[in-house]
Amino acid sequence: MERTYTLVISCPDRVGIVAKVSNFLAMYGGWITEASHHSDRMANWFFMRHEIRADTVPFDLEEFRTAFSPIAREFEMDWFISDSDQKKRVVLMASKESHCLVDLLHRWQSGELKIEIPCVISNHEDFRDLVEWHGIPYHYVPVDKNNKQASFDKVEQLVEEANADCVVLARYMQILPPNICQKYAGRVINIHHSFLPSFAGAKPYHQAYERGVKLIGATCHYVTAELDAGPIIDQDIQRVSHRHTIEDMVRLGKDVEKAVLARGLRWHIEDRVLVHENKTVVFN
Amino acid sequence: MERTYTLVISCPDRVGIVAKVSNFLAMYGGWITEASHHSDRMANWFFMRHEIRADTVPFDLEEFRTAFSPIAREFEMDWFISDSDQKKRVVLMASKESHCLVDLLHRWQSGELKIEIPCVISNHEDFRDLVEWHGIPYHYVPVDKNNKQASFDKVEQLVEEANADCVVLARYMQILPPNICQKYAGRVINIHHSFLPSFAGAKPYHQAYERGVKLIGATCHYVTAELDAGPIIDQDIQRVSHRHTIEDMVRLGKDVEKAVLARGLRWHIEDRVLVHENKTVVFN
Amino acid sequence: MERTYTLVISCPDRVGIVAKVSNFLAMYGGWITEASHHSDRMANWFFMRHEIRADTVPFDLEEFRTAFSPIAREFEMDWFISDSDQKKRVVLMASKESHCLVDLLHRWQSGELKIEIPCVISNHEDFRDLVEWHGIPYHYVPVDKNNKQASFDKVEQLVEEANADCVVLARYMQILPPNICQKYAGRVINIHHSFLPSFAGAKPYHQAYERGVKLIGATCHYVTAELDAGPIIDQDIQRVSHRHTIEDMVRLGKDVEKAVLARGLRWHIEDRVLVHENKTVVFN
Amino acid sequence: MERTYTLVISCPDRVGIVAKVSNFLAMYGGWITEASHHSDRMANWFFMRHEIRADTVPFDLEEFRTAFSPIAREFEMDWFISDSDQKKRVVLMASKESHCLVDLLHRWQSGELKIEIPCVISNHEDFRDLVEWHGIPYHYVPVDKNNKQASFDKVEQLVEEANADCVVLARYMQILPPNICQKYAGRVINIHHSFLPSFAGAKPYHQAYERGVKLIGATCHYVTAELDAGPIIDQDIQRVSHRHTIEDMVRLGKDVEKAVLARGLRWHIEDRVLVHENKTVVFN
Repeated sequence: MERTYTLVISCPDRVGIVAKVSNFLAMYGGWITEASHHSDRMANWFFMRHEIRADTVPFDLEEFRTAFSPIAREFEMDWFISDSDQKKRVVLMASKESHCLVDLLHRWQSGELKIEIPCVISNHEDFRDLVEWHGIPYHYVPVDKNNKQASFDKVEQLVEEANADCVVLARYMQILPPNICQKYAGRVINIHHSFLPSFAGAKPYHQAYERGVKLIGATCHYVTAELDAGPIIDQDIQRVSHRHTIEDMVRLGKDVEKAVLARGLRWHIEDRVLVHENKTVVFN
Repeated sequence: MERTYTLVISCPDRVGIVAKVSNFLAMYGGWITEASHHSDRMANWFFMRHEIRADTVPFDLEEFRTAFSPIAREFEMDWFISDSDQKKRVVLMASKESHCLVDLLHRWQSGELKIEIPCVISNHEDFRDLVEWHGIPYHYVPVDKNNKQASFDKVEQLVEEANADCVVLARYMQILPPNICQKYAGRVINIHHSFLPSFAGAKPYHQAYERGVKLIGATCHYVTAELDAGPIIDQDIQRVSHRHTIEDMVRLGKDVEKAVLARGLRWHIEDRVLVHENKTVVFN
Repeated sequence: MERTYTLVISCPDRVGIVAKVSNFLAMYGGWITEASHHSDRMANWFFMRHEIRADTVPFDLEEFRTAFSPIAREFEMDWFISDSDQKKRVVLMASKESHCLVDLLHRWQSGELKIEIPCVISNHEDFRDLVEWHGIPYHYVPVDKNNKQASFDKVEQLVEEANADCVVLARYMQILPPNICQKYAGRVINIHHSFLPSFAGAKPYHQAYERGVKLIGATCHYVTAELDAGPIIDQDIQRVSHRHTIEDMVRLGKDVEKAVLARGLRWHIEDRVLVHENKTVVFN
Repeated sequence: MERTYTLVISCPDRVGIVAKVSNFLAMYGGWITEASHHSDRMANWFFMRHEIRADTVPFDLEEFRTAFSPIAREFEMDWFISDSDQKKRVVLMASKESHCLVDLLHRWQSGELKIEIPCVISNHEDFRDLVEWHGIPYHYVPVDKNNKQASFDKVEQLVEEANADCVVLARYMQILPPNICQKYAGRVINIHHSFLPSFAGAKPYHQAYERGVKLIGATCHYVTAELDAGPIIDQDIQRVSHRHTIEDMVRLGKDVEKAVLARGLRWHIEDRVLVHENKTVVFN
């Protein structure tokens, strides 16, 4: 896979942004391999993402940032540029359900997900063998009901030491404290096992069974301090009928959870997800 | 299409129900063209539906009922039998959105939906020409905010005069009073423009846009006194993205609404939907 | 809906195209409301579509064309610009199945499809009342097996007189002669009732039933001289099972056909479909 | 999970089959937990599957077979009965793509798929560590172009020694010789990476890319001597667009392949798939 720089911008909308940015790129010979724009007319906000072949621009990232800064200031841009050669560092957190964890480990191992996994953190010992077989460090951090603060201090420390770009709650089942949610805003991804906003909170498949819905689903979203209310990255559903028990729903739901989480994570690490207020623009 | 009798049964579950019923049918030479069973293990309830070629049994419906009654009593069955030659009489109610109305009228006119439509009732005059072009009477019953009772008394009278088996709220947009909901329990079908329980109530597409969901949907359900909380017959969804405005969602949603309502109505008139507590068994 | 100009470009890929075009637009103050780009790396071809608020540029279409021509020549562009105020003229052709025809007429009548329908042409008289009730001229052109040439000469004449931008074969079921396919290349849209390339040609649902597939589908494509082999605009599917007869497949398939044709036509008239060799880029 | 017997029957259709079978079961107190019937009107063939709580009948399987035989003979039934406590023995065969293999191993390890995996056979050494980590024997059987007979003789011997009920080609990529196809008819399951009958044979994603389809898919089917032409168990699709390269299709397709193969295998080992001529009845 060729090396690319990815330039991601959001700013107030006005005439001339695309011209200015594409001029800048063209001036230096930058070959754009993928370009996406979005004007949110209601919010009057503009979103833009470019992939540029790294070998066509006479810049490293630092020089790019310096050269681009004046334009960014002029248009009041919220922006960054990333390098496909610098793989994102993704910490996985799991509990007692293995399906999302195994799925992500396999996508990583087979080279589909181009990330580093510095470690897996779990409040149970169950998956130590599995994770260590993949050559990844496993940290067991039990969550003590009576002293959650200490547990999450430990989690935070491990995430810091891992120098993580992103944390994935792969069915972690514990609620992160607000300080962690805020510190890593837009960088902690959760998979919730319902099509939110239906069935937020605990036991969504039980809620779904009780209500008699004909579709179950899963939602991948950024974690915020408010439970299951963060910006949604992706969702999907699975048809069910009266023949399905709660156990069937749990089983069928796992496949949806895996698929939605893997897609959401992929888009996140490719810098395709832009958050504005509580919603996402996903350039997929 | 050959003439069939449809025998629909629900009762407490125990050994021997299928044997008794199928014996009864076999004894009289009844040729079963479709058979469906469901055991709800949690509710300990049994559901059963048979289609029988009418020409193979030496019965009309009245004689069938008489002959079958002892079995029904023995197993405490909630049951009925219907005749495919007696088309269900379906009153359509509409407001100012035509898509569901046009869709159902076409399915009826083309012979796909084997029903009678004794009349269309609307709180607006907009679709009189359309409906009358189809040869169907159109009743304009404005809903006066200050005297809803009189309006709905009129609606009830028209439904009674139409000798309706079923009423379809084809985006009717008015809330039926509790007395009508109760009188026609399990016989009034509504299409709600969200995947319930998300976004019940008014302006679901606006709610969906606000929340930033990646799927919109529609739900076909029986109307009960509690708004948008009745037994769900069918649901479906449509993928959306940041590029879709509320207007786009409204437009895309219409196709889902049409499809879900048409399916739900089809299953209802074919006696495929059995209600138990607040959930449905759909033998589709 | 605000008035927009749509600028559609395809050309050999190289550095600087986006910069040049967006500079051009920015220079004249053009407010871009939607921009889409695609680089086909294998074909080394570039595709671009912009929607621009008409009130922000000091041009009518003719002046735009003059001003833009030098850029188009420099990059060897295949290009055009259209005006949302000039509705596309779409001739519908039908045979004896009404579902696609009724669907498109309703989308037109309700304002969803912003087109003109100068006339409907059919080889049967069946839908004259329906079409004329919509206030649209109906031309009955029977297709005589022994003299198809004369029939299609008449069709061609009617299309010419209608000054049509586009012809939609809404389940027309007759094969257009090669001269018409070539004359209107990229402007005749067909709906085929299978997921091509499976089950090209006659009776696709019978073929699907025979093969025992678990999915049926429909394909919207541009007509070319080779039957069912033109560039595909959109496809969709519907799940089926052993319980479905051929008649069920025909019925279920209709809903897929309607949906896929309506989407394909919408994208076509919004100038979102770019053909390159035998494939499409769809900026939807 | 409670122990069940599964009784699977197909036979020429006539009046009284259900009555006879359900009488038989009721006579012995058999509690039916799931019952499915299907009349194929065109083939005049009847299909039936019952799950019966093992603790409610005074039989082991052998006694059941003896007691039921007269009924089976009377109706010329093709039939069998299985015991949920006797797990099916499933041999997996793989090549150089791991996604289906890893997926099935995980579903087995987590208890979702209630099977035994006596061994994995591969024509490459790549997955020995993975498979052996799961505690499953791994057999490396290279396929020599110049002496395929010897290789497949070895495969056949291993399958025999494994006492396999079923063989799964989890992207095995080698064509089994006709004698194996015939010997294990209805017991070898393949996943083909297209929605058959489109794109049979080699490199289906390349074919799909070339044709410009908007959907790619996968098909799970029983292997027969004719390549990719056996009875279809399940199919599914994934939407693609002009933005997807062949590599993207390969990647996206993997998720469809995994899902379709896992579903097909599940239904097979639960005795839900009945083959008649070249089609399947799937009681799912």
